[in-house]
Amino acid sequence: MAKLWGGRFSLESSSLLEEFNASIFFDKALWREDIEGSKAHAQMLGKIGVLTPTEVESIINGLDQIASCIQKGEFTFKASDEDIHMAIESALIERIGDVGKKLHTARSRNDQVALDFRLYVLRYNRKIRTSLLELMEILLGIASEHTQSIMPGMTHLQHAQPVNFGFHLIAWVCNFKRDIERLEDDYKRNNFCPLGSGALAGTPYNNDRIYLSQTLGFAAPTINAMDSVSDRDFALDMLYSLSMIMMHISRIAEELVLWNTQEFAFISLSDAYATGSSIMPQKKNPDVPELLRGKSGRVYGSLMGLLAVMKGLPLAYNKDTQEDKEGVFDALKNVSICLQIAKECLKSMTIRVDNMYKMAKRGHLSATDLADFLVRQCNVAFRDAHHITGQVVALAEERGVDISDLEEEEIMKVDSRIKAGVKAVLSLESSMNARDTLGGTSSKQTQAQIQVCKDFIQQAASRLCESENLSKGA
Amino acid sequence: MAKLWGGRFSLESSSLLEEFNASIFFDKALWREDIEGSKAHAQMLGKIGVLTPTEVESIINGLDQIASCIQKGEFTFKASDEDIHMAIESALIERIGDVGKKLHTARSRNDQVALDFRLYVLRYNRKIRTSLLELMEILLGIASEHTQSIMPGMTHLQHAQPVNFGFHLIAWVCNFKRDIERLEDDYKRNNFCPLGSGALAGTPYNNDRIYLSQTLGFAAPTINAMDSVSDRDFALDMLYSLSMIMMHISRIAEELVLWNTQEFAFISLSDAYATGSSIMPQKKNPDVPELLRGKSGRVYGSLMGLLAVMKGLPLAYNKDTQEDKEGVFDALKNVSICLQIAKECLKSMTIRVDNMYKMAKRGHLSATDLADFLVRQCNVAFRDAHHITGQVVALAEERGVDISDLEEEEIMKVDSRIKAGVKAVLSLESSMNARDTLGGTSSKQTQAQIQVCKDFIQQAASRLCESENLSKGA
Amino acid sequence: MAKLWGGRFSLESSSLLEEFNASIFFDKALWREDIEGSKAHAQMLGKIGVLTPTEVESIINGLDQIASCIQKGEFTFKASDEDIHMAIESALIERIGDVGKKLHTARSRNDQVALDFRLYVLRYNRKIRTSLLELMEILLGIASEHTQSIMPGMTHLQHAQPVNFGFHLIAWVCNFKRDIERLEDDYKRNNFCPLGSGALAGTPYNNDRIYLSQTLGFAAPTINAMDSVSDRDFALDMLYSLSMIMMHISRIAEELVLWNTQEFAFISLSDAYATGSSIMPQKKNPDVPELLRGKSGRVYGSLMGLLAVMKGLPLAYNKDTQEDKEGVFDALKNVSICLQIAKECLKSMTIRVDNMYKMAKRGHLSATDLADFLVRQCNVAFRDAHHITGQVVALAEERGVDISDLEEEEIMKVDSRIKAGVKAVLSLESSMNARDTLGGTSSKQTQAQIQVCKDFIQQAASRLCESENLSKGA
Amino acid sequence: MAKLWGGRFSLESSSLLEEFNASIFFDKALWREDIEGSKAHAQMLGKIGVLTPTEVESIINGLDQIASCIQKGEFTFKASDEDIHMAIESALIERIGDVGKKLHTARSRNDQVALDFRLYVLRYNRKIRTSLLELMEILLGIASEHTQSIMPGMTHLQHAQPVNFGFHLIAWVCNFKRDIERLEDDYKRNNFCPLGSGALAGTPYNNDRIYLSQTLGFAAPTINAMDSVSDRDFALDMLYSLSMIMMHISRIAEELVLWNTQEFAFISLSDAYATGSSIMPQKKNPDVPELLRGKSGRVYGSLMGLLAVMKGLPLAYNKDTQEDKEGVFDALKNVSICLQIAKECLKSMTIRVDNMYKMAKRGHLSATDLADFLVRQCNVAFRDAHHITGQVVALAEERGVDISDLEEEEIMKVDSRIKAGVKAVLSLESSMNARDTLGGTSSKQTQAQIQVCKDFIQQAASRLCESENLSKGA
Repeated sequence: MAKLWGGRFSLESSSLLEEFNASIFFDKALWREDIEGSKAHAQMLGKIGVLTPTEVESIINGLDQIASCIQKGEFTFKASDEDIHMAIESALIERIGDVGKKLHTARSRNDQVALDFRLYVLRYNRKIRTSLLELMEILLGIASEHTQSIMPGMTHLQHAQPVNFGFHLIAWVCNFKRDIERLEDDYKRNNFCPLGSGALAGTPYNNDRIYLSQTLGFAAPTINAMDSVSDRDFALDMLYSLSMIMMHISRIAEELVLWNTQEFAFISLSDAYATGSSIMPQKKNPDVPELLRGKSGRVYGSLMGLLAVMKGLPLAYNKDTQEDKEGVFDALKNVSICLQIAKECLKSMTIRVDNMYKMAKRGHLSATDLADFLVRQCNVAFRDAHHITGQVVALAEERGVDISDLEEEEIMKVDSRIKAGVKAVLSLESSMNARDTLGGTSSKQTQAQIQVCKDFIQQAASRLCESENLSKGA
Repeated sequence: MAKLWGGRFSLESSSLLEEFNASIFFDKALWREDIEGSKAHAQMLGKIGVLTPTEVESIINGLDQIASCIQKGEFTFKASDEDIHMAIESALIERIGDVGKKLHTARSRNDQVALDFRLYVLRYNRKIRTSLLELMEILLGIASEHTQSIMPGMTHLQHAQPVNFGFHLIAWVCNFKRDIERLEDDYKRNNFCPLGSGALAGTPYNNDRIYLSQTLGFAAPTINAMDSVSDRDFALDMLYSLSMIMMHISRIAEELVLWNTQEFAFISLSDAYATGSSIMPQKKNPDVPELLRGKSGRVYGSLMGLLAVMKGLPLAYNKDTQEDKEGVFDALKNVSICLQIAKECLKSMTIRVDNMYKMAKRGHLSATDLADFLVRQCNVAFRDAHHITGQVVALAEERGVDISDLEEEEIMKVDSRIKAGVKAVLSLESSMNARDTLGGTSSKQTQAQIQVCKDFIQQAASRLCESENLSKGA
Repeated sequence: MAKLWGGRFSLESSSLLEEFNASIFFDKALWREDIEGSKAHAQMLGKIGVLTPTEVESIINGLDQIASCIQKGEFTFKASDEDIHMAIESALIERIGDVGKKLHTARSRNDQVALDFRLYVLRYNRKIRTSLLELMEILLGIASEHTQSIMPGMTHLQHAQPVNFGFHLIAWVCNFKRDIERLEDDYKRNNFCPLGSGALAGTPYNNDRIYLSQTLGFAAPTINAMDSVSDRDFALDMLYSLSMIMMHISRIAEELVLWNTQEFAFISLSDAYATGSSIMPQKKNPDVPELLRGKSGRVYGSLMGLLAVMKGLPLAYNKDTQEDKEGVFDALKNVSICLQIAKECLKSMTIRVDNMYKMAKRGHLSATDLADFLVRQCNVAFRDAHHITGQVVALAEERGVDISDLEEEEIMKVDSRIKAGVKAVLSLESSMNARDTLGGTSSKQTQAQIQVCKDFIQQAASRLCESENLSKGA
Repeated sequence: MAKLWGGRFSLESSSLLEEFNASIFFDKALWREDIEGSKAHAQMLGKIGVLTPTEVESIINGLDQIASCIQKGEFTFKASDEDIHMAIESALIERIGDVGKKLHTARSRNDQVALDFRLYVLRYNRKIRTSLLELMEILLGIASEHTQSIMPGMTHLQHAQPVNFGFHLIAWVCNFKRDIERLEDDYKRNNFCPLGSGALAGTPYNNDRIYLSQTLGFAAPTINAMDSVSDRDFALDMLYSLSMIMMHISRIAEELVLWNTQEFAFISLSDAYATGSSIMPQKKNPDVPELLRGKSGRVYGSLMGLLAVMKGLPLAYNKDTQEDKEGVFDALKNVSICLQIAKECLKSMTIRVDNMYKMAKRGHLSATDLADFLVRQCNVAFRDAHHITGQVVALAEERGVDISDLEEEEIMKVDSRIKAGVKAVLSLESSMNARDTLGGTSSKQTQAQIQVCKDFIQQAASRLCESENLSKGA
């Protein structure tokens, strides 16, 4: 029967199995961390007398040479090396001989990979925070210039109340503030050193785990060896934090796409971040924001994938866990790029303040201000105020203008209870600036919010600096 | 054509629409928070002179009566009340008349629901932490009794090295420690008061947001009004933290199911947490652990669902966000129950130390200890040590016993380099206790780990206490 | 220590366990299927001689009475009944005495629940198809009226080419066509009867499974008993099909939200499906489309949840599987409602053909038609044609009009190679109708597409009818 | 401020943008389909007179050369080619000059990519079906040899009833049968040709879409152009079908991992598919099944990711859709490998029939057969039968044997109503063979089930053959 349909796609199975089992083609990304960890381990073995000072020196030198070799792109990752740990260990033995074999004393691949991957995630944690801080700075720079640029504040994508454009941008900034704080929390919660946990139960050697932890820039050793080799919370925490960043990015991207339409025309993306058409001049395809929005899906997928992998896994190490890395690598790479790209895209867009203002004139956005004026200044009961406001809006509709464009005397004719000064409260500027308590959209409050965010950046940057210094990171 | 297939399932559309739009049937869960928020709002309105002291008092009394009424189950939630906010406001106006209408001054349903839901999530955050602490205590209690109970430590579900049962339980405890820390981080990051943000831009009243924030037990007001009404990070953070708890629970549940099989027989679940069969005495269906394991899926689903809802939503409030609640409510309810149930299930299980020990005797788990002994005590090169160990294992296999059960002289006959004292290192106890550095499985280290966890509980409990006091929470 | 933080939230554990294990509060939804299945089982037991004709009659009567009782809402589901199967069996025994106990002969709860849930999913499969057909009919009705209503066809949300509104609606209809086909495929693939599989291995009775299958309207009995009790593909297939429907609905909802903005103003939602504001007349919050869009998340979540539950489950039945139902019930209920609501919402919206046309005039949508005219009618090389077109667009920009509004002589002045007749190809109508091959947007092709879809509906409705008849379904 | 923390990780932005936008590095996988589609398009353009026969020939030759060049690995994909379509078009123009530029007449990248990706997914659909059929054959081969090999049939991972090993394997086979049917349904539902849809509205040329569809082996052209360029259902359908395959694989993998433990020892994996330990002879890490189980997560993630991407996308084409490919490519590659590996792993495992039988003796699995015997042969009421059975089990427990190992006279002494012949029903063989109706576990029924599955394979293989022939596929 096989001849009917079989064989067409069959591959040579032995090479397949090698490809299936091997992780070298993706975990080579961990080379830096693997070498860093091995150097610390060698020094520790020296300290507790398992290696002689000469042996330690020889190993360190060998590892440094390999690192430099990889960095220069001169290292060949061979298919027969199953993973990055084996690749580097073989290379070491090749270079320095039998003493290289002693490096793996009092260590297991289980604690080694737990270390490498954790160091990698922590390093990227710092990197992503850097990018977020840069992005926040750019947004705050734009916001500072637009604390008086009025646009229609929307709920349900409908015009609701006039706000300034800077105020809207700060809402975006607040998302990223939480993202940074979340990453800081992840960092602190996972900044513990698993090395020395052995395969699952510790080692019979007298490992100095405190020394290891300090050398590698961690806060402390992990508590329990079995947990140390089976824990992948640090990877999931990162995927979740990245998902949240992308969710926030996707909301911004959606607004950029909308604002860049011919219908909205609030912004115009730079040619570098949109594709145009030579014969349709207004067409500017917002490719970059669309991709930013689309890439949220992929990061969500990696989170969901790893949650599924970890579900129901018995302790301690299982090979399923090998599936933890590619999703994290891909998500880190994509989010890093997205943040860089978003920065440039936002920096280079043209803000069409005039169009925003023009649209804010649609929908009688200061109608509620009129009602408030009647209640508070003219002593009109709320129900009546509401009725009178309706009449004024009807008048404006009839004239084909926004209520803020009616003349004061026209308005006062509508009802005798309307006092002079009403025109002033109806302007969009006045309406916006009336929202003047903490968090409100008045220009003054917006400026105060910008300052709060700048202070946050200053502090977060200094915390990040400190982390970098402690980690002696790559 | 319609007659062919139509109409069979059609429902009356107007009632459908009501059901579709209304949230009252699930958001009534927020009644406590809604009233708490309204009381604070009324007091604030009094403070800034929008309400008179008498009006404030009347509103507070009215709200207290409604609260008591709901608590007693005497409150009727009517279909015509769209949501919990309307339900309570209508009831208030019914009770205290027109003054009730003033309560909604300087407030919008957008900031009101943001407040209520956030308070609810924060309250459950404390509740879940309480349950986790209780669960950790129970596990530590069992662990304390089993720091010398030997079981086969596994990787890949294969016997690897002897560990003690207490040590295994601490690995579980470490998961929950991180869960509590994650919840604490979520709490701190989201403990800000959105009330006073209005619909999206603040309000034109002189809201005292700092007073509101303090009254409601928050750390501070939120920074930006537009962010305040569109932010649902606090809900997603909770769903993620709950997903992690359930992931951890699912791993434990998997082990309980396995250990409860006739093949493993490491534990025997209490009859209350398993269903038996009167004619098959050994059958004990582990229903409870299976459900604990299964319920992880549902919580993952709620996380993924809300991530999808929030993707690409423009600012500020959109009705899509109404879909944030049911998933969170369901996840909170289920995780709360799971933690309670897990506690009881673990507390009541019988630990079959004898079977664990018997199984640890399979697989020559101390073989690596023999190799180490040869290297370190008998000055044998590692390669030779490995070879000799293989011979000893072969001997044990031939006799049908574990190597730890061979006589010392039998072992010594295998190779003349084997020194006396070898028998001692081969026992499971000795093998386990040899792993005696930080995090290792020796009884001593296990006890130290228990103490570290107990200290953590003490501190976390006191932090929780403080939170409870500040929140004056329900 | 417990006093510090404990006890606040603890519940009475025994009732918790009951609530945790019991499924009666959600699986009572299966009552109709449970009774249907039991009646068929009783008849089969009669046929093979396990029950006497009198016993069969007595059981059937008892079950019919219970059904009628439940339908009238007069049946009390007691907490002590663990699930719907027990609830109905107890009620039967209560009514007809000991003969009721014989009903469970040659059956297990494992095959019983597999049957009930499958029947339920198949019934809803038919129901959802009905709703989709109704929705398609409504869309085709609107499309028929708008095969000449020009709107800007968009890619990247940018104006690209003029299309007619009917053509756009057919794109939506095609989504639902695939949804129906997918449901039909699911139906056929899962329409097999698991009853008679026993707990996992069949039964020692002489069950007539072909009779059971026919009586219950299935295509045939399932092949293997162990698979029959552990298979939940039918539930996952349904969740996936529902996710796809909601994905399609979310895309439509997004467009409705956009089109309903003041910026687009292509449609105006009926007041019943949007919330307005008495003082901001243009404001029309598109609550219903927003909820339709948001509800996709929840259905995705249920799919992901069940995929996670089923991952790595050993055969045959495990209690985890109890978690299969609530997500499916919730998704079915929500999708059913969404389809009903979407139907009404679409039927009642006002289409603002004038605004669509006005916007289609922005962006020189017929510029490519001009270039084509130059190449094909004026024998101009493509490169030159492109250049000339650019000049004409520049002229239009200068005049502040769309190129379709330029006068023929103005255009011809731009370059001497432009022939008379150019004005005709520049009109939006001409541009649209030029796309006149299969699938194109010309009015003629659009009408043909409507006919294709109508034919599909006719056939799908008749297939659905046939299914209904075979299933004798509720 | 920037100096504090900035710049460390910043990359050169222009190259970043290129990398961000470009899809060439992954969509080059579509080269075969792109060329196939272009050849058909060129022929169609010839047929409708847009190209001369010489031009068509020149283009076809050029494309064939490029194909051969890519196949030999001699084609350089340049970074400056944005995507596979541009890469091939540029290469064509380079080879055959200006006539190459005419190929893109009456086509857009939107319909081109929709075609390529769809052809690719359909090709892999056939490939995956081939692998599934091969896997089923292997399982049926093993099953045929084990229709009398008794093992404990389990529910809740507890011994429930004796089944034969072949019967268990058929449950697995039934999963794959549905997977193949699902793929067949996907194929039929999506086997339509989008080419000729242009950017979104059709083209102004007289495209012969029926000719295109036939040439490319599709069933028919798609109905509506706008739907054709925005539809990604075919990709989602594939991801769902792959998720289901992996879910099924994960269940099998879980059982292999369990069965390979020292506790179960039902199978022993071949050394090639497990990693052993030279000094711990029993240790056999089931790496391959663990990876098979783990890889389900990644495929689930890709499904969830694309569902999120598509949610709420307005019509027609959006750049977000570029995110549809990598997840599908990755899933297809991984599932293809998993199926190959699973095949080999299953084929090479050792089945330890003796251990299975030994474990089936634990738990008195024929106790229910005894009760049935009493009811049906000895005329004992069920309640009494149950009581007597309990007594017999107690006797067996006392003797430390399974009830099937008791002597007939011992059993008969327990109660005078027990008739001779009882011993026969108690044997595991008898118990298994008693389940002898359709789908049951008796050896006879198992053999019948094997035949049903073999017939299915024969038919599915012939349907696949037909598809292959029609598609003239690669």
